[in-house]
Order: sequence, then structure tokens, then C-alpha cells
Amino acid sequence: MESFFKLKKPDEVLKLMERFGACGEEEIPLGEAFNRVLSRPVISPEDLPGFPRSTMDGYAVRARDTFGASESLPALFEITGEVSMGEAPSETIGQGQTVGISTGGMLPEGADSVVMVEFCHALDRETLEVSRAISPLENVIQPGDDIEKHSQVLSEGHRLRPQDMGVLAGLGLAGIRVYRRPRIAIISTGDELVSLDMQPAKGQVRDINRYSLGAYCLKTGAVPLFLGICPDDFDTLNTLVRKGLETADGVWLSGGSSVGTRDLTLKVFETLDDFELMVHGISISPGKPTIIARSGAIPLVGLPGHVASALVVAEVFMGPLIARLSGLADPGMNQGVSVEARLSRNIESKSGREDYIRVKLHREGDTLSAEPVFGKSGLISPLVEGHGMVRVDMNTEGIYEGASVEVFLFS
Amino acid sequence: MESFFKLKKPDEVLKLMERFGACGEEEIPLGEAFNRVLSRPVISPEDLPGFPRSTMDGYAVRARDTFGASESLPALFEITGEVSMGEAPSETIGQGQTVGISTGGMLPEGADSVVMVEFCHALDRETLEVSRAISPLENVIQPGDDIEKHSQVLSEGHRLRPQDMGVLAGLGLAGIRVYRRPRIAIISTGDELVSLDMQPAKGQVRDINRYSLGAYCLKTGAVPLFLGICPDDFDTLNTLVRKGLETADGVWLSGGSSVGTRDLTLKVFETLDDFELMVHGISISPGKPTIIARSGAIPLVGLPGHVASALVVAEVFMGPLIARLSGLADPGMNQGVSVEARLSRNIESKSGREDYIRVKLHREGDTLSAEPVFGKSGLISPLVEGHGMVRVDMNTEGIYEGASVEVFLFS
Repeated sequence: MESFFKLKKPDEVLKLMERFGACGEEEIPLGEAFNRVLSRPVISPEDLPGFPRSTMDGYAVRARDTFGASESLPALFEITGEVSMGEAPSETIGQGQTVGISTGGMLPEGADSVVMVEFCHALDRETLEVSRAISPLENVIQPGDDIEKHSQVLSEGHRLRPQDMGVLAGLGLAGIRVYRRPRIAIISTGDELVSLDMQPAKGQVRDINRYSLGAYCLKTGAVPLFLGICPDDFDTLNTLVRKGLETADGVWLSGGSSVGTRDLTLKVFETLDDFELMVHGISISPGKPTIIARSGAIPLVGLPGHVASALVVAEVFMGPLIARLSGLADPGMNQGVSVEARLSRNIESKSGREDYIRVKLHREGDTLSAEPVFGKSGLISPLVEGHGMVRVDMNTEGIYEGASVEVFLFS
Repeated sequence: MESFFKLKKPDEVLKLMERFGACGEEEIPLGEAFNRVLSRPVISPEDLPGFPRSTMDGYAVRARDTFGASESLPALFEITGEVSMGEAPSETIGQGQTVGISTGGMLPEGADSVVMVEFCHALDRETLEVSRAISPLENVIQPGDDIEKHSQVLSEGHRLRPQDMGVLAGLGLAGIRVYRRPRIAIISTGDELVSLDMQPAKGQVRDINRYSLGAYCLKTGAVPLFLGICPDDFDTLNTLVRKGLETADGVWLSGGSSVGTRDLTLKVFETLDDFELMVHGISISPGKPTIIARSGAIPLVGLPGHVASALVVAEVFMGPLIARLSGLADPGMNQGVSVEARLSRNIESKSGREDYIRVKLHREGDTLSAEPVFGKSGLISPLVEGHGMVRVDMNTEGIYEGASVEVFLFS
């Protein structure tokens, strides 16, 4: 039975994820676009700002009229008015003239710069002393200084952050084209499972993975669709998997760890159109009995039934899969966030497989200490106690106490 | 005018945030609890697992019956049946007896361990050879091994991660008491602002902060409530601020950078009940003209009008404020995520203020390079081009090219 397992290395599995792509596009209002992924580059329809603006509170002048001004020999200006916020000033600034202007105000015709209020002294309502020379364009931003018309502001595949929302608003882009959030159908398999609202009898357990895998989907920007609990029965599983293929962009089964269920899962998969078994077992611990396949462009994943194993596989492989389905161009920079810590105990590991050890982090002065949380296979508590995971490479047999390790944070 | 500014240091401002607390409690269904913050510790109402379970596919035995077994001298067992998943086995295991069992199956009476299927060889349907000795409790988890009844599983102030959702489901906790998500009233002030759907005339700009600050709230788990655009007018601002105090757990105004608006904001604030001006200016760049106050327990914040400055202040101070309002016990470990990078150019900075310099990250082999993105004050594009910020300490006058810097990532 074990010979069916041709274990794939984690790197090979990650590489295979690149065969999946973004699952569709939609246009949504800007107000709903935070954290969504752009399906097209954003080209600016206009200059930002659209008019010359002051970046300071002060007085708008022709810079050349301040040349030579100093505290001992200030330049004198005639105050001809004040720029009202939100209005185009009617005055034209001539030689030796000035108007008051606030941060963000529009520069009047003739003026090319703004003297900060700190260097101005109004002798009366009509006369201003300026105690410093300034250069043309000082304290002014010109049309297009921030964003030029027709320039590319954001690229396809970019996830929208608060500042990106700001620039889209500034450009008046009310409707944004983004990739659809991938919908992931979640099926929990196993005769022993009961739903949360039932009191399990002896031998029964509550369906945990619906909640933990559902939350993992939300965390990565996917939408979980719960198709329910499925007994170990070909017809029911077949019906649910097909329902998943019809309604979702990915189908995740959990519970296929035992040989019987795993065989059943494969039997169902093999009846699907354009089916390909891509991964049947991964050299990783926990998480070895993972199945990854496709029917057409839709990924089908058989995750281990143990919540701890299922979540490790999710963190390591399903995150990248969802990134692909989301159309994310560079998931690397801000995802899979890690910190450096000092290992507080030896970790042993079998060579030939990648081990993920859960660790608790403790602050010790300026450094972080990572304490392995051990526990029997199938326990969830080490994952709950832990702050993150340390990866032990396939080619090593462990890591010594005191070594510097990279901890991938749970979040 | 500037003398009203008694600039506070960033550390002092962060310390003042500790005066704010969680804004209320509610009970929600587990399915909606991902990323929410527990308002009470979770005490386990039962043992997890609730019965002895196998962690492997194999055969349940009395461990002592395997003692001495080896490949050359296997122990013989009588197979008396198979444990069905989800059912309490009816068999009792006596000396030399065994039943087949799958991962997660319930151990029958009499058995104390499970032999992995790899070490078993069924001679016929009733006879099993076991080629290895195992110890009591091997491949078995006992009731309470994962979570003991009456033990504390999660603490007050903990933000729920996927694994925490799993353990709550496993314990059958369908309703979870969490802190309310803080509601933040957002008011954009300024006569120059128009809403997204309007074409700005000369001198007018679109309301950017509504979108960028709203997204920042969502990012940190708060709920933004948009109260609208407010002209520079005492009565309107007064009405909107009071509406914010009635409907929200915090009120953020943006646009108070110019002296006139800042004065107006303070005038409105001073008419409020139990009012205290806590911060009037911070020695930080950008973001100096920030006001933080309270009316009763509700924070009132006047943020700079420039989106770039407002977002830096949000990243540095509003994140911690929202963490307080959210009841988060330890916002430090997973928030404000940073990476180490090598600075690609000198950064100059004025001593006596904390500077936040936006940087772009580039991968160069194994190291990250951080390239400062400079630009005039008031531009949003450096924030959009940037991946994060480098903090330049108050007591230094800059950082040299090649230095190792911590980059706080935008996300």
C-alpha cells in the first residue's frame, strides 16, 4: 500500500502550484477593494495634483522677489488677499505682491513658490516682511508631481493596501477591476465526525477542520464554502466533490489520513473529467499523506484529518496555492512572515523529510527565544500554544540548542 | 502660534495610549470568530479527546503481549474484529487478542496501545503476526491528553487564529465571548474636499483619507464609520464630532494640518464633556501636527490632512490605539512586522525628531536592500512605491549607506 506513495519533496510541490492561475475577474466599488488583488494595471487618468498646490501654510510669491532677503534686510510685499481653500484664486501675483495661502491651497497665477509662515511678518493687513530668500517651486507641488497622467500607478497582481486605496481615491477611480476571491469548498470526511451542535457519543469527535481550515481561507483572502460532513461512502463523497467543482475554485477534503479514506478519495477523484494526480504524499512531517490533484483548472486537495497536520500543510502549501488562485504577483514580500530567534533546545529530525516543529517564542531582553512544543501526533494543543514553526531542512538531522532559527509566525 | 506646540516624544505618546481600554464585549457564533479577540479566558468544559484514540492505522493490542516480538520471532494474535470509525467498540481485548483500528478510532476495552500496520502481517482473516514490541500507550492518545477538562485553553485578550478556531470547535464551544470590534468614526475636514463621485474643480481635491484611513481600520480589525466631509466650519464640525462620540469608540478627524483647521478642531474639542488634550504635536516626521485627546473614555484624534503623513501616524500610533480598544493583550508579537535590510543610500535626519523614511525593498541574492523613496512632503506616491518604513531615531542625524536597518512593512 505504501508503495503507491511516491513522496514528492516540498520544493517540487511548491513548483507544481505554479500550474494554477487566477480564478476570474470582477469590478467592485473602491470602498470594498481593500486587500483585493488588481486584475489589471492602474493607469492614471489625470495628473495628481491637478493644479499647483502649496505644501505649507504661508504666502505665495514670485521667488525672484525674495532674492537677497534676510532677517536684517527683509523683502517687502503688498498683501493683495488670501487664497480660499477649495477655490481657484482670482488674483494674479505681480512683482512685489503676495497672498496668504494654507497647506493644500491652489497657487495663484504669477506665483511660483510659497514662503513658510515662520519667515513672514505682517506689518499690517497690507504689508508683509519676508526674512528669507526662497527658490522657485519651493513648498509647491506642480500638476503631476505626485502621479503623472497616463503613468502606471499600480501593477496587475498587486494587493491593495491603505495607501493604494488612497491613491485610487485621489484619482477618482470609483470602480476597480480585481480578481475574484477564490472560493474554497471544504468537505470534512470521516464516519466519526459530528457537527458542532451535537454531543459526540463515544468514538465520535466534532468536526474541527471546518473551522480551522475555514479560518485559514479567510486569513489568506479566500472564501470558504462548507459543503458539510461526509461519511466514508463513495456516492456521498462523489456527490459532494462534484458539487465543489461546480461551485468553487478549489476543493479541499480533510480526513483522508487513514488508508481507507485515502483510497476512497482517490477513487472518487479518478472518475472526474480531465483528472490528474499531481502529488500523492509529501516528504514533510507532519503532513505526509497529502494528495494534490486537479480536474481541469480546479485544484483538488486531500488534507490530513488531524487538524495539526492539516494546518501545517495549509501554512506551507495552501497559502501559495491560494496566492496563485488570487492572482497575487508577489506573495513573498509580505506573506509567510518570519522572525529570527535562538533555539532553546535541540531538535531532532529524520533526514530525508522536511520537519515543521512548533515553537513558543519568549522575549529575553533584545532577543527572542524559540522553545519547541513537542507532543504526540494528532494533538492540537502544541499548535495552540505555539507562536510559529521552525523548518528543519531535509538534509539535516536536527538543529542544536542555541542556533539561530527562522520562525514562521502563525497569524 | 507654534509655541502652543509642546511636542511630545513618540515614546510618550505610545505610553499615553495605555490609558485607553477595550470598548465592550459581545457573544458571537464560533463561525464568525476568526481574528476576534477573546474577552474572557476559555476554560475547557471537557477532555479532548473524550476517549482513548489511535493515532495510527494498525491493530489495537495489550502492549505486554508484544514484548519480545521481533521480525525473526513475531508474536501471534487472534483478530477478533475491527473498530468502526465513530463507534464505541463492543469487543474487549483479552490476552493475545487484537482488532484492526484506523487513525482516530476508539481503543477497545482491554487494549492499551496500537501496533502500526507496517509491523503487522495478517496470515489470514483471524491471525496476525506482529514483528515488533511496543510500549503501553504507544500510538494512543488518552482522554485529556490534548486538552484537560477545566484547564485554561486560551487567555483573555488573545486574537483567534485558525488553530484556536479548531480547538474551540473541538470543545463544542458554539458561542464565543469576544470584545467588540472598535468602531472608528472618520471625518475628513477641509473646504477643498469633494467626494469620489464628483469632478473636482480647480482648487478642489477628492477625499482620499476616507479610503486610506478606512482601509487602515479594516487592516487592524476596527470598523470604519464614515461621517462625511466637513467644511472648515465650527457648527458642522461640532455636530459631526458629537455624532462620532455617540456612535463610535473613537473619532478620527483628518485635515487639521493647517493652522486654521487645527485651531477649529481644538475649539470644537474644548466644548466636549470630560475633555482632556493629551497630545498636541509629536516630534515625528512626517506627522508632527497630530492631536490626541479624549472625551470620557473615547479617544479623539486629529490626523494630518496629507494622506502620507496621516498613514505614517496611523502605522505608528493608531495601530497601538486600536489594539488597546480591541482588548488585545499582546499586540507586539505578530503586529508591526519587520524585516532586516541593507540601506542602499545615506539617510539624513534632523536630530530631536523621529523620522520615518519610506523604502522600496529589492532582493539581492539572500539579502534585502532598502532603497529610500524620497519626495516632497504631501506626496502619496512614495508611500505607494514603498514596501515599508525605516525609523531614524531621535538621537541620530541619519543612517549611512550599507547599514543594517529594520524595515517596518506596510501590509
